Amino acid sequence: MIKRYEQAEITGIWSNQNKLNLWQETELAVIQAKAILGQIEEGVFLEMSGILRGIPIDIEWWLKRDSEISHDLNAFIEERVRHLPLQLRPYFHGEEELTSYDVEEPAFSRMLKMSLGPVKENLSSLIHFLEEMARRYRYAVMMGRTHGQGAELQTFGKRCLTWHQLLEVDLTTLRMTERGLRYSKISGAIGNYGSIDPQVEKEALRILGFQPFYGATQILPRELYVPLAGALCQIVKTLDKIATDIRLGARSGQPIYQEPFGRRQKGSSRMPHKKNTISNEQMEGMARMAKGFQGMIMDNIETWEERTIEQSSVERVAWPDLFHVALHSIRIMTRVLKGLVVYPDNMLKEVIDSRGCYAAGEVKKFLAKKGVTFGLSTEEAYRITQLAAFNVFEPSPEVQQLRESPFSSLEEANEALLKFQQMPISTPIFIKDIIFKGELRISPELEAAEVDIKKWNGVLGQIFQDPANVKEFNQIFSVFYLLKHEAKLYQEILGI
Amino acid sequence: MIKRYEQAEITGIWSNQNKLNLWQETELAVIQAKAILGQIEEGVFLEMSGILRGIPIDIEWWLKRDSEISHDLNAFIEERVRHLPLQLRPYFHGEEELTSYDVEEPAFSRMLKMSLGPVKENLSSLIHFLEEMARRYRYAVMMGRTHGQGAELQTFGKRCLTWHQLLEVDLTTLRMTERGLRYSKISGAIGNYGSIDPQVEKEALRILGFQPFYGATQILPRELYVPLAGALCQIVKTLDKIATDIRLGARSGQPIYQEPFGRRQKGSSRMPHKKNTISNEQMEGMARMAKGFQGMIMDNIETWEERTIEQSSVERVAWPDLFHVALHSIRIMTRVLKGLVVYPDNMLKEVIDSRGCYAAGEVKKFLAKKGVTFGLSTEEAYRITQLAAFNVFEPSPEVQQLRESPFSSLEEANEALLKFQQMPISTPIFIKDIIFKGELRISPELEAAEVDIKKWNGVLGQIFQDPANVKEFNQIFSVFYLLKHEAKLYQEILGI
Amino acid sequence: MIKRYEQAEITGIWSNQNKLNLWQETELAVIQAKAILGQIEEGVFLEMSGILRGIPIDIEWWLKRDSEISHDLNAFIEERVRHLPLQLRPYFHGEEELTSYDVEEPAFSRMLKMSLGPVKENLSSLIHFLEEMARRYRYAVMMGRTHGQGAELQTFGKRCLTWHQLLEVDLTTLRMTERGLRYSKISGAIGNYGSIDPQVEKEALRILGFQPFYGATQILPRELYVPLAGALCQIVKTLDKIATDIRLGARSGQPIYQEPFGRRQKGSSRMPHKKNTISNEQMEGMARMAKGFQGMIMDNIETWEERTIEQSSVERVAWPDLFHVALHSIRIMTRVLKGLVVYPDNMLKEVIDSRGCYAAGEVKKFLAKKGVTFGLSTEEAYRITQLAAFNVFEPSPEVQQLRESPFSSLEEANEALLKFQQMPISTPIFIKDIIFKGELRISPELEAAEVDIKKWNGVLGQIFQDPANVKEFNQIFSVFYLLKHEAKLYQEILGI
Amino acid sequence: MIKRYEQAEITGIWSNQNKLNLWQETELAVIQAKAILGQIEEGVFLEMSGILRGIPIDIEWWLKRDSEISHDLNAFIEERVRHLPLQLRPYFHGEEELTSYDVEEPAFSRMLKMSLGPVKENLSSLIHFLEEMARRYRYAVMMGRTHGQGAELQTFGKRCLTWHQLLEVDLTTLRMTERGLRYSKISGAIGNYGSIDPQVEKEALRILGFQPFYGATQILPRELYVPLAGALCQIVKTLDKIATDIRLGARSGQPIYQEPFGRRQKGSSRMPHKKNTISNEQMEGMARMAKGFQGMIMDNIETWEERTIEQSSVERVAWPDLFHVALHSIRIMTRVLKGLVVYPDNMLKEVIDSRGCYAAGEVKKFLAKKGVTFGLSTEEAYRITQLAAFNVFEPSPEVQQLRESPFSSLEEANEALLKFQQMPISTPIFIKDIIFKGELRISPELEAAEVDIKKWNGVLGQIFQDPANVKEFNQIFSVFYLLKHEAKLYQEILGI
Repeated sequence: MIKRYEQAEITGIWSNQNKLNLWQETELAVIQAKAILGQIEEGVFLEMSGILRGIPIDIEWWLKRDSEISHDLNAFIEERVRHLPLQLRPYFHGEEELTSYDVEEPAFSRMLKMSLGPVKENLSSLIHFLEEMARRYRYAVMMGRTHGQGAELQTFGKRCLTWHQLLEVDLTTLRMTERGLRYSKISGAIGNYGSIDPQVEKEALRILGFQPFYGATQILPRELYVPLAGALCQIVKTLDKIATDIRLGARSGQPIYQEPFGRRQKGSSRMPHKKNTISNEQMEGMARMAKGFQGMIMDNIETWEERTIEQSSVERVAWPDLFHVALHSIRIMTRVLKGLVVYPDNMLKEVIDSRGCYAAGEVKKFLAKKGVTFGLSTEEAYRITQLAAFNVFEPSPEVQQLRESPFSSLEEANEALLKFQQMPISTPIFIKDIIFKGELRISPELEAAEVDIKKWNGVLGQIFQDPANVKEFNQIFSVFYLLKHEAKLYQEILGI
Repeated sequence: MIKRYEQAEITGIWSNQNKLNLWQETELAVIQAKAILGQIEEGVFLEMSGILRGIPIDIEWWLKRDSEISHDLNAFIEERVRHLPLQLRPYFHGEEELTSYDVEEPAFSRMLKMSLGPVKENLSSLIHFLEEMARRYRYAVMMGRTHGQGAELQTFGKRCLTWHQLLEVDLTTLRMTERGLRYSKISGAIGNYGSIDPQVEKEALRILGFQPFYGATQILPRELYVPLAGALCQIVKTLDKIATDIRLGARSGQPIYQEPFGRRQKGSSRMPHKKNTISNEQMEGMARMAKGFQGMIMDNIETWEERTIEQSSVERVAWPDLFHVALHSIRIMTRVLKGLVVYPDNMLKEVIDSRGCYAAGEVKKFLAKKGVTFGLSTEEAYRITQLAAFNVFEPSPEVQQLRESPFSSLEEANEALLKFQQMPISTPIFIKDIIFKGELRISPELEAAEVDIKKWNGVLGQIFQDPANVKEFNQIFSVFYLLKHEAKLYQEILGI
Repeated sequence: MIKRYEQAEITGIWSNQNKLNLWQETELAVIQAKAILGQIEEGVFLEMSGILRGIPIDIEWWLKRDSEISHDLNAFIEERVRHLPLQLRPYFHGEEELTSYDVEEPAFSRMLKMSLGPVKENLSSLIHFLEEMARRYRYAVMMGRTHGQGAELQTFGKRCLTWHQLLEVDLTTLRMTERGLRYSKISGAIGNYGSIDPQVEKEALRILGFQPFYGATQILPRELYVPLAGALCQIVKTLDKIATDIRLGARSGQPIYQEPFGRRQKGSSRMPHKKNTISNEQMEGMARMAKGFQGMIMDNIETWEERTIEQSSVERVAWPDLFHVALHSIRIMTRVLKGLVVYPDNMLKEVIDSRGCYAAGEVKKFLAKKGVTFGLSTEEAYRITQLAAFNVFEPSPEVQQLRESPFSSLEEANEALLKFQQMPISTPIFIKDIIFKGELRISPELEAAEVDIKKWNGVLGQIFQDPANVKEFNQIFSVFYLLKHEAKLYQEILGI
Repeated sequence: MIKRYEQAEITGIWSNQNKLNLWQETELAVIQAKAILGQIEEGVFLEMSGILRGIPIDIEWWLKRDSEISHDLNAFIEERVRHLPLQLRPYFHGEEELTSYDVEEPAFSRMLKMSLGPVKENLSSLIHFLEEMARRYRYAVMMGRTHGQGAELQTFGKRCLTWHQLLEVDLTTLRMTERGLRYSKISGAIGNYGSIDPQVEKEALRILGFQPFYGATQILPRELYVPLAGALCQIVKTLDKIATDIRLGARSGQPIYQEPFGRRQKGSSRMPHKKNTISNEQMEGMARMAKGFQGMIMDNIETWEERTIEQSSVERVAWPDLFHVALHSIRIMTRVLKGLVVYPDNMLKEVIDSRGCYAAGEVKKFLAKKGVTFGLSTEEAYRITQLAAFNVFEPSPEVQQLRESPFSSLEEANEALLKFQQMPISTPIFIKDIIFKGELRISPELEAAEVDIKKWNGVLGQIFQDPANVKEFNQIFSVFYLLKHEAKLYQEILGI
């Protein structure tokens, strides 16, 4: 991974230094296992581990030797054995019984495990921070949006809860995939203990923190690891979904939140006024990459017979890079959320701008219930509400005219710009009023005849003759009524 | 493809009926070629083609036979030969010289070619319609957006031109990939004319509209077709980019355009007020699918030696489905654009809402140029403009207070909602005024000291003592000045 | 999915008929839940469910209506409600409280669950059959292969065990992903129970077999389903790995097994002698498709705010198609394995053809151990064994000559073909003999000097002066010695 | 990319040093263009370019500054401007007119172009080397294989030609995609020349080697580059196809070729006899990666409105990595092919091992033609040939017995191994003899009744009473007859 997105822990874990140390640990575990099982003297293990752990592996020496013999594990053995007294040498590499992947597989699984550590930790922190946000914005009323359109009322705290739950699902998924890291193998060149003793495998793996996978070939099934790559990709995808939500809320006009912007930051070389959502946009890039890496790893299931080595190059690149991408993404999102600038005022303005449509579902339900005695069908209740919602946004005749024939010159456009700029803002109308007053009008956008509308306005008049209905109707536009059940979510998710 | 997204032409082209007809055409072309080359009598071809073209292929018979012998081409031969008099039979299937893929390859390439027809035609129409849109909205001034933020001025016509050009690139790419469809092969079981005469191949392919690909194996290299799949996927991706732009502009609040909404359409079962951008959202689903199908086809390059048959199942599914998806997407987008409801009034409102920031780049440039004599650096010109842009959006103290400590109860939220609803809208300030009047203020969001600001306000005062500067400054906010070069794009792209 | 690969159960589950029935079940569950909770009278539920379950949903009517209003769920409601007496109508669709996806989400999850049924069942059967194969071929000795090269001895039963274990991992993975299907939602348009009562959700979901997912938006997080798609893809990939192993073993020359070939089957229209591994090759096509579909589903995580509808088209296509592909693949592989023609004789011939190299690892280990007293290093033990292995395959001088300068005309080639055909087959030499007799020779392929080889031959002579060494050496080539631990695998995996 | 697969040129091209140098070249080209157009004095350009080209860009300084202001292009401007005398500073960065991507886009395209150089060069060399191989092995007769089965005769030279042609298609495709690199843009923040003069763009781009792309937004359409990623991926896929062919031919038993094996190389730490096809297997890993990177780049088409920056992170990683992978793959394959060890002797042995089936197609055709007068149908000709082909491989009764009931103990297996080892090799039979002598026999594998077989043997006897038929029949097994048309391929492809 390039410096810009590299995560220090991941770089360390996947370094040659760490890899070779882990290889050495496998080698020593095998010798220790034999000592425990009484197959060799304990002194052999103690002396050898003392010497080898005391002399750092010479990575340069190893690289040079590897380039000569084209076999990295053999080069490693040579590097190590040269530090041993002659009588100990035969014991190294399992008395010549091991195949390369007996050494490499436990090391590889441990690198995956080690890499998972910071991912889980940072993801948990992020989830925890979303909990804090949910609490902080528990009463920040806003429009929920579906299809980009204002839908019903919610709070920003509730949106944070839904983000929280996405990541909870991801964390649960990630934890399930750890199951594949329980196993390893030291079962010889084709997995049937051609020369190694199954007892030694079991004991050595126990020392290293694994159980044997019975039925390995030269390598472990890559099926064990694929779900982990899927879970990592999924996390980045979720983060990108959250990032998209932030980008959508940060659009200029009336932003409801914005990603943090440094006091010395420059948004654009050309346009000094810009506060760009670059961190959130980067998350989309990360998601594209994560998916690519996940796809590479999925392909690693395919190998020939007792193994071929296609998977090796992919694993050297795609695993660390996928971890870099995942961890970087979690950290960026944490930074974005911790610095998120939230505008509860604009959230309210969006609610107001909906002209009461935020309660349209309840209006329809109200009309269906109350209208039945006046011969109004459920379908008509729907159409009345829809018509009212269209009526409130109907343009003035000039605007309508403009929509039909747009400017035919820059002059016209310039003139309109000046005119609009000075135009007094007319008082908006709300669906509540239209319906209450029975003022439905023909809309060019909907199929509703004059005669129907007249009838509907009549029925509305009848409904609101009953003061109880008026009271009930007023209530359904209130924050208390519409958000009455959000507490349930807080209770179930956060236990508060 | 499921009915919902199926395109009639594509279904027809990839039907068994059409495929087997094309197989027959290959068979007949070989016989015709031999007749032309004098290797057999012309009467053989005439009689055989007369009979076979006269008797439709019995698909049911063929399917049944295929299920018995697990060989679709042999089953086809049997179906056909049974209609021939004994003396003609030996001539069919190239006198036993052909292998299945000698017959299938030309048919397959022709199915690709045939499928390309409606794609190119519909894509060209769509491009043409975008040209119309560019003309229609040539003067519809709007904010260009980068990073979702208002950037500089443009017209909607110009945005249409950029969409136009994306699709032009795609169409050019698509046309380049047709090169791969020029070639076919009738060169025997392993491509070295084991029994068939290269002259016969050449002549038969000529009849079918192809040149021989020298160096085929049993099959043609799939490398020939992969770019076509890439080009189709690219088209759908571009359409999805356009669809995203439409979705972004259609967000409720102040939509600048919306996808067409039927007069009898229902947006949501629960929420009657909704005008959802479902067609444009579907485009994203199409893009996800297109990419999946393209990936499947890319893998088809891999085969063993002179061929194995992995590619066959993929090609039966992924090619027609990719064509369905591409053609459906083009058609949906055409419908969306033809019915697009455009709000030039809201476009202007967005410009106004930017508080003059649409000209911030020019302001900075102006200050850099004019300020130099007053000791203002380019860097300072940048910071002055940035500060002015931040100043115009600074909240009132109450709002600032609310941002810092959001509501602590629904009551508070409800109260604020009511208050906001009744609050008189304050007259907005514009960067033009701040700069012209030298009224820069401290901003909590930017690192700029009191002393610097004071100095800057002073310099601004000095600059605007010169009436020429005032005039020049006023000009840079005008539509004419900022859009002076858009005509160049119309000229270069549309030749107008 | 096209007919050819379609699985009847999956087609049924994803049919409109089944989908709409499941929608109805959600609707009825909500009403039943209300009755249970005492919110409505039980009679309402009983009467309504009686009527609706008694009248099949008219798919044609529904399709027509959907095409008019562009809203499939509303069209469904209209189709159903028309069969109800007026007084019952208001109760349908949760008294106007539900949003489409309150109805569709439980139905969708149930379709996934239902589709999983046959997958798990058929996969379990396949795993069981592999157990039978492992037993049947427990003593069928063969070469294990790594990198396509003969490696060490194993049995075909053991290879079956490794296939068994791959699929066991897949089945375990699949089962883990079922966790995502435990949850559903009936929590309204944006998931905060705008109009629906959380108690009703809980009860209705219980009836349908789910728990509520707290923190849904309009829809459930697609994160819940992505691992399932991963697991299905993984299964097909594993099957393709097994299929590749079969293709590799079935290569003509000396096949060790072959896929079943029907007694009336035709291998090739041109080449009657062919027994092609078409079913196994098709598995590769299936894997390409499975990966494509999995990628599409992964993308479905991305959606805007409280939902946009990108995922819908993808889910209509990719989920059923992924299930078709997975189930078809499992069935094809079951058919292939049940009919697999196994050649234990050729397996043995491969062992013999390895010229004793199957024990090379043990030879090296033996030499390292025995040679130490004669000054032989571990490195030299390696090089001796390598040299012996290269010596046994050294060509005759004529062949060597041919390799250096290949034929310069077809005449030469033809002559050689005739000569080779009549050449008596020379008795092969084995590494056992070379080493035992100390007959190592210079090899052009390895860097080993005359002087070293002479020394090594001397040491070998010394080693084999000891009859105990001779006995031990002979033993390491025996089947008993090399396969001594395979029983462990049977014991651990099959418990026998 | 990790060191192991990194290509020095690509690393250099994508280094910060080179990138920033290219940015500087864009900046200078704009100034030069203005000088040429007479908009500024030539001296400005000469002095500035003299200074800046003389002072290397301080990468450390730049990185530090970027981390402060989070804007790499602005940090670059600051680094450069500090070296300029005050009076020159305003001219840099196009007198404040440019946006970052006006500078970066031409640089980016040039990096793509520069990276293409070594790819095309190395690919051309590889193609050229395949031409040499085709010449060298023009007469090396071998079995063509379809479905892994021996099919018909060809030469190894011809297989090299087919590989050659795959790469030719790839190279042609690659060249077509260069079209997208002809264009660039310097058209301002949203692509409509808000402040920059189109003439300056045109002239500056001319200096840099580009034409303007009219209709850009802030950035160029990524549609221009996607086909290039596709072409690079395609190359790696093709190389993997060739690598697979080599792996298949190198399988131990009777290898027809092997990848080069160093004289000091070690195949396996455990198994000294191994010559593993590790380079060719790595190619499969490369193909997996290439596809992943290509997918990432495909997604870059999607962006919002006049641009968002998702593509940036992907392009920093995926493009150089895709080039590394492509170039590494081409070089590895070149090394493999240049060192390929070819065994023409084993190629012939494979032909012999096919027992004459290599001519089965011609046999069938011969029988269909000759048999017609004796009442033999084409279908029967097929079945006779198929039966003969099955007859020649029928096992001895003992072997048949073994196939039906495999060993029930290791003892049995061991015994059989010893027996097989000593068994005299029986003289093989050939289909030529069976058919010539009319010795077809019942086969348990095919549905052919005794009575049919008897009839067929009779007809065969009649056919071969005619000495002309005997002569013709003999001929169809000859190398000359079967390869008579291969020369055509050499002529068309290599012009020889």
